Amino acid sequence: MREKIRVGIVGASGYGGLELIRILLQHPLVTIHSLYSSTKEGESISALHPSLQGLVPLTVQSLEHVGRELDILFISAPHGHSMPVAQRAVCNNPTIKIVDLGADFRLPKKLFEETYGVHHEAPELLDKSVYGSPELFRREITNSSIVASPGCFAHAIALAIAPLTGIPGVSPSLFVSGVTGSTGSGATPQQKTHHPERNESLFAYSPLAHRHVPEIEHAVEHFGRALKVHFVPHSGPFSRGIYATIFAHFTGDYQQIEKAFAEFSEQNLFVRIRPSPPRIQDVRGSNFVDISVAAKEGTAVVMVTVDNLVKGAAGNAIQCMNLMLGVPEETGLLMAPFAP
Amino acid sequence: MREKIRVGIVGASGYGGLELIRILLQHPLVTIHSLYSSTKEGESISALHPSLQGLVPLTVQSLEHVGRELDILFISAPHGHSMPVAQRAVCNNPTIKIVDLGADFRLPKKLFEETYGVHHEAPELLDKSVYGSPELFRREITNSSIVASPGCFAHAIALAIAPLTGIPGVSPSLFVSGVTGSTGSGATPQQKTHHPERNESLFAYSPLAHRHVPEIEHAVEHFGRALKVHFVPHSGPFSRGIYATIFAHFTGDYQQIEKAFAEFSEQNLFVRIRPSPPRIQDVRGSNFVDISVAAKEGTAVVMVTVDNLVKGAAGNAIQCMNLMLGVPEETGLLMAPFAP
Amino acid sequence: MREKIRVGIVGASGYGGLELIRILLQHPLVTIHSLYSSTKEGESISALHPSLQGLVPLTVQSLEHVGRELDILFISAPHGHSMPVAQRAVCNNPTIKIVDLGADFRLPKKLFEETYGVHHEAPELLDKSVYGSPELFRREITNSSIVASPGCFAHAIALAIAPLTGIPGVSPSLFVSGVTGSTGSGATPQQKTHHPERNESLFAYSPLAHRHVPEIEHAVEHFGRALKVHFVPHSGPFSRGIYATIFAHFTGDYQQIEKAFAEFSEQNLFVRIRPSPPRIQDVRGSNFVDISVAAKEGTAVVMVTVDNLVKGAAGNAIQCMNLMLGVPEETGLLMAPFAP
Amino acid sequence: MREKIRVGIVGASGYGGLELIRILLQHPLVTIHSLYSSTKEGESISALHPSLQGLVPLTVQSLEHVGRELDILFISAPHGHSMPVAQRAVCNNPTIKIVDLGADFRLPKKLFEETYGVHHEAPELLDKSVYGSPELFRREITNSSIVASPGCFAHAIALAIAPLTGIPGVSPSLFVSGVTGSTGSGATPQQKTHHPERNESLFAYSPLAHRHVPEIEHAVEHFGRALKVHFVPHSGPFSRGIYATIFAHFTGDYQQIEKAFAEFSEQNLFVRIRPSPPRIQDVRGSNFVDISVAAKEGTAVVMVTVDNLVKGAAGNAIQCMNLMLGVPEETGLLMAPFAP
Repeated sequence: MREKIRVGIVGASGYGGLELIRILLQHPLVTIHSLYSSTKEGESISALHPSLQGLVPLTVQSLEHVGRELDILFISAPHGHSMPVAQRAVCNNPTIKIVDLGADFRLPKKLFEETYGVHHEAPELLDKSVYGSPELFRREITNSSIVASPGCFAHAIALAIAPLTGIPGVSPSLFVSGVTGSTGSGATPQQKTHHPERNESLFAYSPLAHRHVPEIEHAVEHFGRALKVHFVPHSGPFSRGIYATIFAHFTGDYQQIEKAFAEFSEQNLFVRIRPSPPRIQDVRGSNFVDISVAAKEGTAVVMVTVDNLVKGAAGNAIQCMNLMLGVPEETGLLMAPFAP
Repeated sequence: MREKIRVGIVGASGYGGLELIRILLQHPLVTIHSLYSSTKEGESISALHPSLQGLVPLTVQSLEHVGRELDILFISAPHGHSMPVAQRAVCNNPTIKIVDLGADFRLPKKLFEETYGVHHEAPELLDKSVYGSPELFRREITNSSIVASPGCFAHAIALAIAPLTGIPGVSPSLFVSGVTGSTGSGATPQQKTHHPERNESLFAYSPLAHRHVPEIEHAVEHFGRALKVHFVPHSGPFSRGIYATIFAHFTGDYQQIEKAFAEFSEQNLFVRIRPSPPRIQDVRGSNFVDISVAAKEGTAVVMVTVDNLVKGAAGNAIQCMNLMLGVPEETGLLMAPFAP
Repeated sequence: MREKIRVGIVGASGYGGLELIRILLQHPLVTIHSLYSSTKEGESISALHPSLQGLVPLTVQSLEHVGRELDILFISAPHGHSMPVAQRAVCNNPTIKIVDLGADFRLPKKLFEETYGVHHEAPELLDKSVYGSPELFRREITNSSIVASPGCFAHAIALAIAPLTGIPGVSPSLFVSGVTGSTGSGATPQQKTHHPERNESLFAYSPLAHRHVPEIEHAVEHFGRALKVHFVPHSGPFSRGIYATIFAHFTGDYQQIEKAFAEFSEQNLFVRIRPSPPRIQDVRGSNFVDISVAAKEGTAVVMVTVDNLVKGAAGNAIQCMNLMLGVPEETGLLMAPFAP
Repeated sequence: MREKIRVGIVGASGYGGLELIRILLQHPLVTIHSLYSSTKEGESISALHPSLQGLVPLTVQSLEHVGRELDILFISAPHGHSMPVAQRAVCNNPTIKIVDLGADFRLPKKLFEETYGVHHEAPELLDKSVYGSPELFRREITNSSIVASPGCFAHAIALAIAPLTGIPGVSPSLFVSGVTGSTGSGATPQQKTHHPERNESLFAYSPLAHRHVPEIEHAVEHFGRALKVHFVPHSGPFSRGIYATIFAHFTGDYQQIEKAFAEFSEQNLFVRIRPSPPRIQDVRGSNFVDISVAAKEGTAVVMVTVDNLVKGAAGNAIQCMNLMLGVPEETGLLMAPFAP
C-alpha cells in the first residue's frame, strides 16, 4: 500500500487554508500532517474553524519547523509573506515541494516589485518557480519543485483568454468586467466585507488598475501571444465565485473560436464549455472552469466562472500538487459543484 | 389651495405598480385615485401587496373605465399590452396624460416591431410619444401628452453614454457589462428568479442580444451621435439595482470626459458624479443616477448605477409626470437612498 | 409660517444617525441643523455616508457645543456614552429636549448598572427620563424632556407582549425566539457581521442572557403586569429587520386575544394586525409594527416584525420627538415599507 | 474487489435527487446506475442540472422498469407519489431495498392519512417500513428493506429532543421555533421562493400547524417518552439549512442535560455538541447535526442545525443505505461542511 502524501499548510486560519483542508480531507492519497500559522500557534484548528469540529484533530504550529516531515507544503499568505516561509521550509527540508497560493512567486522579479511595491527577498526560489496554471503550463508544473498558484481573477480570465490567442481576427486589446464574492477578501473583517455594506450591493473597485492585470498579461503572453487587458473588477453580494465577461473586437470566423474552446476543453478535464452562459452556482465548491462564448457584429464575448476558493485557489493548488507528485491530475478534485 | 393631481395606475399588482404607489404616497401634490389590473379586479391593493396595509384603502378596478376622472395615467404592463390600454384611456378621457413604463412607445414603429415581434396597433399615439428620459429630452417631455419611460438597463446605460457623445477621441463602439437585480424580472415566479437558483449565483443572459440595445442606440443617436453598443447583461443575487460598466477606446483628453460629466450633473439634479466607483447601495430606493469615470492606457470606463424600480422605472416616470404637469421636476422624488 | 424644528444628531457616522437623517429629510416640520460625532469631526456627512451626496451639505462637528441652537437632540451612541453627552447638551441649552437611542436612560439606575456593568453618572437626568415606547407610554412621553427610545429587540417583543397582559389564562412565563438583521450590530466591521460569516448562515447568541430582557420585563411590568421572558436571539443573513415569535401557555378564550390586539392596533396607528404571519419585507423601511396571533392546544403564539433601524430605532425616536413637541405623532413617518 | 452497489434515484430532476447524486459521486462503494423521473424522461441529467455536466453521463428514464438491476432505490417525490413507485419497484425487483425521502412511509397508516389527507395505498410496505433516523432507530434500520428518511424539520427537532426524554424535570410540553432555507420548498418556482419575496425577508408559516409535528411526536414517543411539540416554522432568506430552537420548562439538574447530549454525541458520529450556539454555516453541505444547550431560571434551551438537503434529506438517506447494506455507517458521508 502506498504511503500517504504528507501535507502541510501555512495560513491555516484563513479561508485559503480552510478550503485546502476541506478538499484534502477527500483526497485519497493525502494525510494532513501539519498546520501552521504565524499568529494562532497553539490553537486547535476546529476552534479557529468550527466547521471542522470532529474532522481534523490538529493544533496549529508556529513556523519554526515549517516543512519538516512533509512531502509538500501549501502556503496561503498575504503577498510578501510567502517568501521567507518558503525559504525556511527549503532550509528545514531541502527536498520539499511547495505550492504558494499568494503572489510572491507568480511574476518575474522586476514586475513583482513594481506591482506589489515589495522587494523580492527570495530570488533563488523565484528563478525555479513555475506559474501554476495546469491548463497553460502543465508540463512545466510537472517538473517543478515550487509552483505559484494563480490569483483567482487572474486565472479565470487567463483561461478564458488563452484559447483566443491563436485565432486570426481577435483584436489584441481586450475589455474585461469581473465580479467576485466576498471570500476573496479573506477572513479578516473590513469595511467592504461588512455585511450591511456588501449585502444587496455591487460596486467596482480599482477600475483599470487591478494588480492581477500584469499577471494575466504575463501568463497569456508566455502561453501564446501578447494581449492587452483592460479590467474592471467588482465586488458582488455573494460569498463564493468569480464571473468574468471578456469583450474583443473580432473580424474572423466564429467557428474558429468555438473550435479553439472545444479543443481547450478536451485537453483539460476541468474546463467545461457551456451551451449557454455559465452560472456561478454550477461551479461553486468545485474545481471546474465553466466557459461560454458568443459573437455578433464584430464582437466576440467570452464568459467564464470559477469558485474563487477552489479553481481560484485551493483546488487549483491541489491540482498542481497532483502534477508535481506524479499522481493523476484530477485525484480528489472531481467533487460535484455545490448546487443549489 | 391647489387641487391634487389625480393619478391612476394600470398594472397595480406588479412591482412597477407597487413602486409607483410607494413613491406617490410621499408626493405632496398627488392623490392616488384609481388602481387597475386586467387580472385582479375587485381585490384590495393591500391584499395584493401586504406592505400597503393601512396606507392605501383602494380596490383594484377592471380596465373598462380606465382614465376617467384622472389627470394622468401610469401604465406598467408587459410589452404589447400598453397600446390598447392607452387607446382606451384616451378614448375615455381625451385630455388625459399618459406615462407608459413598458416598451410600447419607446421606439419608432418599425424598430419596435422588429425588436419585439409584435405589430404596433396604436401608431397615432406612438407618433405623439416622447422618450421619457428627462436628462436627455427634458423639453420634449414637458410638452408631451404621452411619454415612454425608458427600460431600466437602457436608461442607466444611455445616461452614462450620453455625455461621451460630444467628446473627441471616444470610439463609436462601446462594450457594456451590466448586472440587474431580481425585481427587474417582475412579480411572477420563474426559474431564473427562483430563490435557490438566483441566490449566491450570477449569470449572463442574451449576450450581445438584449432588447434594450436598440433603445439605447436610438436614444443616444437622437441625443447626440450614433454609437454602437455591445452589451452583455447579467442577473445578480440581489433584489434591486442595476450596475453597468462601459468600456470605450479613448485617445483624447481625460479632462474633457470629467468636464462633460460634471456639466451633465450640474444640469440634472438626479445625476451624481462620484469620486470613486458608485455602489448600488447608495442609490437603492432613490431616484439618483450615480456615475464615476476612469481612464488609462487608451481606454475610458464609465460606471453607473440606478435602482431599477426607481430611476429605472417608477421614479423616472413620476419625474416625467412632474415635467408634463408643470410642477418642479424633483417634487416628491428627493427621498434619500435606502442605505444600509 | 411655522418655524422649522431645529434638530441635532449625535452619532451621525453610525447607522442610527444615518437612518435619522434619511427619515428626517422627509419630515415636513424639521430642519437638520447640526451633526455631531466624537471621532469624525470635520468630515462632511456625505463622505461618511455616500448615499447622502447632494442631499445634506453638512459637516460633522465635535461635541463641544452640542445642543446649542437646537430644539431637540437625538443621541445615537453605545451604552455608557450618552450620559455625558446628554449632560453637556443640557448644560449648553437648558431647555433642550433629548431622545436617546441608546441604553443609558432606559432602566432604573440599579438595574442599568447591573445589566450593563457601568456606573450611571447622570442620575439627575435618568430620574426625569421616560421609556420611549409611544404605544405603551404615550402620555408620559408627551410631557417629557428626555426620552429613552427602546432597544430594537426589546421594543418589538414588548409591543407583542403588552396586549397579553390583561388576558386571563396567559401564563406569566413566555418563551421568545427572535432573529435580527446585521445592521443591528452597527457600522463597525466585526467577526459576526463579516459577510462570509453572516451570509447564508443563522446562529443564536447569548441564549437566555440577552441584555434586552430586563428592559422588556421592566417595560411590560410598568405597563401592565409582571411577565417572565425567556429569550433566545439569533443573527440572520439579512440587513434589516427583526422577527420575534413568542410562545405562551394559554388556557383562556382565543377571541380575547384577538380582541386585545385589535384594540391595541386601533389605539396605535403604527401597529398593524395581520391575517397571516407577518413578513420582514412588509415593514422594512417603515415605522410599522406588524403582528399576527395564533393559538392551538393550550398554546398561544404572537409573531411580530419591525425594521430594527426604524420602529426599532430612528423612526420610533422621531415618533417620540413628535409627541414631545406637540405635533401629530405620525408626522413624517407614514412612508410605505420598502418592498420588494 | 467488491462489486459496486447499484443505486437508482426516482425524482432525479428535483433538489433531493440532485443532492443524492452530488453525495453519491463521492461514495467509494456506489455506482449511480439509473435515474428516473415521471416528467423528464429522455433528458440528460446534466441538462436538468447543469452543475453535473461532465460528471454523470446518464439520461433520465421513465418509471416503467424502476428498480430493475438495482441493489437499492432512493425515492424523492412529493407525498402520495412514493407509494406506487415503491410498489412497482418491489414488483420489478422483489429483493430491492428502498429508502424513501418523502412522507409516505414515515407514519402509521391512520396518522398518515389524517395528516396528509391522502389514502395510503401501500399498507403492505408501510407495515415493513422503519423510520429512518439512524441516531434513534439504528438497529431497526439495519434489518429493514424499506426505510422512510425523516422530514428535514422533523429530524432536526427530533434529534434535539430525544436526549431530553430521559431527564427528570423536563416538562412534557416543548416550544419550538425553526427557520428553513429555500431549497426546502423544492425546485419548482412559487410565490414564497420568488427571489424578491424571499430575499432579505423572514416569515412564519403554519404556526402551530406544521405537518412535521405528528412525525416528531411519533418518533420521539417511539424512542423514549411522549412529548408535546408546539412548533412555529419560518422561511429564511438563505438557500440551505435548518435552525431550530427548543424551549422547555426545566426544574432538574443542568449537568444531566449536558451529560445526556454528550452521550448522544458519543454514540452518534454525526452529532456534534457545540460549546456555543451552532451556526448553519458550520453544517452546510455536511451530514452533521450540531447541537448546543443552555439553561437558566427554570428554562432549558436546545439549539440544533442541519443542512436540510443533507442530514435533512439525501445525506441521511445514504446513511440509512449504508446501514441497510452493512457497510460502515459513515461511508461517503464524512465530507467537511461547505464553509465559508
